[in-house]
Amino acid sequence: MEWINDANVLIVGLGLIGGSYARALKRLGYHVLAMDKDPEAINYALEEKIIDEGAVDDSLIPKADCLILALYPSIVTDWVRTYQHLFKSHVIITDVTGIKSAIVSDVQEILREDAEFIAAHPMAGREVYGVKNSDDRIFRDANYIVVPTDKNTEKAIHWCKNLGRILGFQRISELTPREHDSMIAYVSQLTHCIAVALMTCDDNEKLRDYTGDSFRDLTRIARINEDMWTELFFMNREPLLDRIDSFIGEMESIREMIAKEDAKGLKEKMRLSTKRRLLFDK
Amino acid sequence: MEWINDANVLIVGLGLIGGSYARALKRLGYHVLAMDKDPEAINYALEEKIIDEGAVDDSLIPKADCLILALYPSIVTDWVRTYQHLFKSHVIITDVTGIKSAIVSDVQEILREDAEFIAAHPMAGREVYGVKNSDDRIFRDANYIVVPTDKNTEKAIHWCKNLGRILGFQRISELTPREHDSMIAYVSQLTHCIAVALMTCDDNEKLRDYTGDSFRDLTRIARINEDMWTELFFMNREPLLDRIDSFIGEMESIREMIAKEDAKGLKEKMRLSTKRRLLFDK
Repeated sequence: MEWINDANVLIVGLGLIGGSYARALKRLGYHVLAMDKDPEAINYALEEKIIDEGAVDDSLIPKADCLILALYPSIVTDWVRTYQHLFKSHVIITDVTGIKSAIVSDVQEILREDAEFIAAHPMAGREVYGVKNSDDRIFRDANYIVVPTDKNTEKAIHWCKNLGRILGFQRISELTPREHDSMIAYVSQLTHCIAVALMTCDDNEKLRDYTGDSFRDLTRIARINEDMWTELFFMNREPLLDRIDSFIGEMESIREMIAKEDAKGLKEKMRLSTKRRLLFDK
Repeated sequence: MEWINDANVLIVGLGLIGGSYARALKRLGYHVLAMDKDPEAINYALEEKIIDEGAVDDSLIPKADCLILALYPSIVTDWVRTYQHLFKSHVIITDVTGIKSAIVSDVQEILREDAEFIAAHPMAGREVYGVKNSDDRIFRDANYIVVPTDKNTEKAIHWCKNLGRILGFQRISELTPREHDSMIAYVSQLTHCIAVALMTCDDNEKLRDYTGDSFRDLTRIARINEDMWTELFFMNREPLLDRIDSFIGEMESIREMIAKEDAKGLKEKMRLSTKRRLLFDK
């Protein structure tokens, strides 16, 4: 379970994120295996030398010292249930999923005694999909969150943080599944809801001539993978609904300040907002 | 009233936008004058050769063939009322203000018979202020909206569009004051309300470790000039309240889809959002 250069890493699901992991690890000298049901993805990755070996079936699983599950959230647990009889003993498994409570406890509960699952969330992405768009530079300025539970060993937590570091993430941190999901509901899922709502609350088709940077910035993520995000929203429903409610409450309070021309209240909000936003640019 | 190379252009208010106009026009060979109540802004601009002549009083007004009012919205009308007795005959005046209905009709009503005011909105800005941060490259990918009324001549409209072109704006368009204000309430003021609300609806101070690009994008404009934006919001209150209400309505409808796990409805919203956003990147 050491993270050593001759370790065989198996990437399960060779899409944008799986492909980006593969590129980074291959460049670092690891022996990178990948499985994906799509033969085109595997062939492309082999031709481009993004991976060393690839398969559309389960044949590579027994070779893997560690597994990176880069799958849609809803199928992670089932995947482990289906294939864990093929795992090498002492395998270590991590994931890239954007929600944790709904997955981590299930996986840890069903997992073989001689394997360990340590959850992680690489907070990187693009508005395009597939291994053909993969690019490990997306990790450079990004955050990586390790999400251990009391079932995890120090060794696995250390391994997982190290993985984030060698992939090139800028900041590595640690949260519980519950903390993670509440935070992600706020900084990622709520922002995607806002971007969609901003794009769909008006049907003007000539916006392009009238928009400034602000509208373009707020709607960049309005190009959205509807299958993945619908899953993520539903699997993190309660924390997300809480965050949407706080945000709508805050919008309503700003609305009232504008309606009543409460300059003092509004400027106070703006000063607070400015102060908090400044913390990011330091 | 011709826009000719030896015309004297007077910039009134030498801040970020006034300074950026000055830089662009000076480079193009115009004789650029500026007035600002702040002697430091004038001295800086003279030393940096951003302007040819500067004053903290009204002494340059009689020399100007055209005026660019780069002032806070609430003082534009008063400024014209106070200084128009000094205007050269046949002077042409434009502005850079982010709202129009509240200003254009007032200015056009009180203006001298032998002068013409043609409103424009350069949709460019930065999160920093003052002539020291001015930079005419901010116009390059930006939109410029000319906002004429039935009091304007074709000649002035043409002049104003040409000004946008020579400043380097990417797209020049034309809207009525009412259309402009409704559009701006949507693409600019609503987005600023959203960014502020997103920043103030949670008091977590360690966000930086957990945010991805999406949160950073949506809150870039949360660093906000509270005096200017409070003015802009209040001067465009009705269109802005309408837009806030539509947006909150849309957020509530997305909230209900998540609460009820209405995957079909949610994916439809996301597809619409994706389709509309794609129009921007063409």
